Amino acid sequence: MSASAAWQAASLDRPHVGILGGGQLARMLVLAGAPMGVRFGVYDSVADGVAGHVAPLTVGSFEDLAALDRWVARGVDGSRPFDVVTYEFENVPVVAALHLASRGAVWPPAVALEESQDRVREKTMFNRLGIATAGFAAVNTREELVAATQRLGLPAVLKTRRLGYDGKGQTVVKDAGDIDRAWGLIGPAVASAGGLVLEAFVPFERELSIVAARARDGAVAFWPLTQNEHREGILRVSIAPAADISAEVQAIAEGFARRVMEHLGYVGVLAIELFDLGAKAGAGRLIANEMAPRVHNSGHWTIEGSQTSQFENHVRAVCGWPLGQAAMRWPGARAAMVNLIGSLPERAARERLMAEGVHWHDYGKEPRPGRKVGHVTVAGEGAMIVERIRAIMDA
Amino acid sequence: MSASAAWQAASLDRPHVGILGGGQLARMLVLAGAPMGVRFGVYDSVADGVAGHVAPLTVGSFEDLAALDRWVARGVDGSRPFDVVTYEFENVPVVAALHLASRGAVWPPAVALEESQDRVREKTMFNRLGIATAGFAAVNTREELVAATQRLGLPAVLKTRRLGYDGKGQTVVKDAGDIDRAWGLIGPAVASAGGLVLEAFVPFERELSIVAARARDGAVAFWPLTQNEHREGILRVSIAPAADISAEVQAIAEGFARRVMEHLGYVGVLAIELFDLGAKAGAGRLIANEMAPRVHNSGHWTIEGSQTSQFENHVRAVCGWPLGQAAMRWPGARAAMVNLIGSLPERAARERLMAEGVHWHDYGKEPRPGRKVGHVTVAGEGAMIVERIRAIMDA
Repeated sequence: MSASAAWQAASLDRPHVGILGGGQLARMLVLAGAPMGVRFGVYDSVADGVAGHVAPLTVGSFEDLAALDRWVARGVDGSRPFDVVTYEFENVPVVAALHLASRGAVWPPAVALEESQDRVREKTMFNRLGIATAGFAAVNTREELVAATQRLGLPAVLKTRRLGYDGKGQTVVKDAGDIDRAWGLIGPAVASAGGLVLEAFVPFERELSIVAARARDGAVAFWPLTQNEHREGILRVSIAPAADISAEVQAIAEGFARRVMEHLGYVGVLAIELFDLGAKAGAGRLIANEMAPRVHNSGHWTIEGSQTSQFENHVRAVCGWPLGQAAMRWPGARAAMVNLIGSLPERAARERLMAEGVHWHDYGKEPRPGRKVGHVTVAGEGAMIVERIRAIMDA
Repeated sequence: MSASAAWQAASLDRPHVGILGGGQLARMLVLAGAPMGVRFGVYDSVADGVAGHVAPLTVGSFEDLAALDRWVARGVDGSRPFDVVTYEFENVPVVAALHLASRGAVWPPAVALEESQDRVREKTMFNRLGIATAGFAAVNTREELVAATQRLGLPAVLKTRRLGYDGKGQTVVKDAGDIDRAWGLIGPAVASAGGLVLEAFVPFERELSIVAARARDGAVAFWPLTQNEHREGILRVSIAPAADISAEVQAIAEGFARRVMEHLGYVGVLAIELFDLGAKAGAGRLIANEMAPRVHNSGHWTIEGSQTSQFENHVRAVCGWPLGQAAMRWPGARAAMVNLIGSLPERAARERLMAEGVHWHDYGKEPRPGRKVGHVTVAGEGAMIVERIRAIMDA
């Protein structure tokens, strides 16, 4: 990609878009963009990325800048370089994003990766922008951990600042007698993970997320607040709009996303996970947990539930196109999504769901415990949606 | 494809589907099936088929049975043969469909191609099934043409029975003095086109279409009747549900499609173009013009306007899956589609449409006069839809 007309163009015709990462998020970006005449290529470190079923997949290391350059120069089919590069996961090495951005258009901006890859930087940014978080403290030594527990109280959660520590990166510190165990478990990662962070517990009532999009001209779109439930650390169900959300609460969440996006000069879709402390907390009821500078699992319901999906708006944004409406498909509509984790339901269950009007999403991945292999979405009206989705979850 | 488990299976898991024809209909089939975990390969006689942007495209002649066999055996990626073959256009040589059907699953059945490729056979079938048509007569000689004009009245339309005559296959016979000119123009095709047909004019008020789907177990789904307008012989706009359609009229159209599908042992999506003679014609107000044994341009609005698109239901049907609901997305919804013909609107017009919530479909085709290069769809409520679509057409 030369530092190029593509970069300059406010709005591209039939763009060719490169996606770093070839999993289901890239796959759904391709499936949202292709109907609009956008073409894609994907790049991943493994050969079985399921976006490769719908776009040419190039395998290489995210650290290999020369390989990335060759991928961008070749583009979709060798006919021309990509017009713009985007990504489907927040652990793209910042150096790779900066390198590519020095040569052409990369959206969302690399600074969004930098902020989101470090829990302390991210929370510090939130707080500076007037977005509340749980109390936290950077921790680099056992002594700092002890001091932090005294300041934040216990129990609290000790985490690595960066995610790149084999998923073993956190533990609950239950009481003062538990500090040695926690430090013994997480402390060895202090150098490789860029330090540690202790986070205070917050007494939240539920988890919400705000998914937002920002166009190159600064226009923004916000989907309705979504209520999320996790099981064993993995998102299990999302329902939108979340119940009992006043216009004021929606506006607070939109303000969070707007401030982050404007601060970062953001282009594309951004998700912020929130804790809802409940009505008794008044205007301070929402606090930010973490953000994802990409399309987000809690926005999958937008494919059928909203007028424009998060995937379509991400593609529109990075291509310099106008955003589509993020409102529900019709007044009174609700949507609910259930992740299919580990394996797909057996055939009879699939057939029953499909016959009942459930939207079936199979990512084409091999089954594996804890792996997101698909999701189902129901769109309809009112409380019926919640009942239907509960029935699916119990099945 | 061996005469195989694939053929026997009532319902396939993660099917691999081959599509004969690689144009925009195949492209939209791929984009509808991929989210459900279905993989595709397409076969076309030309290398620039736009389905090739989203699925591997094999180039070969539709007459080359050995090449077709190789394509089927190789499947999506060489890992296994296609589980089922379908097609996106009705001029697939019957011999090719029969050949492939002798080795595995081909849906819709080859007999649907046979019936639809010959105007006389098709209308004869309609009439035998109690479906009215305009008067018609097979014509093989000038004398038969004269006799037919006397029986059917003039003006009337002289056409080739088969479409394969370079698109030059029809002319209006205005009066008795016009017979020599008409015969001189169309008569030379009598041998290559399998004969000619004279069709009486009918005083219709509007053109409608019924799009229907039938599953392998015989279950059927019908989308609401769609009103269509043509310009210069090419579909320009479709609006659904068509205005002023009673439940009785909808049921008549569904009966037409149901009888044809049951007669043919049909699996997949079928469209029947209809003339509406108006309310004064009572229960006989609908007459059939012609059918298409495939997904149909007048059903493109179903992508955003109905609960399950024609493309998704075609894929579900040929894979042996349950059909999804063909009802409008929500009660009171309407949808309208405008074909983009010849070239796409310029960038400013595209951006205005996209910002206004229009669903943008760019097939990725090169511009060419008369070519369908994309379409736009608006979904909403009531008469507003018609006003919006008129504004788009006038722009």
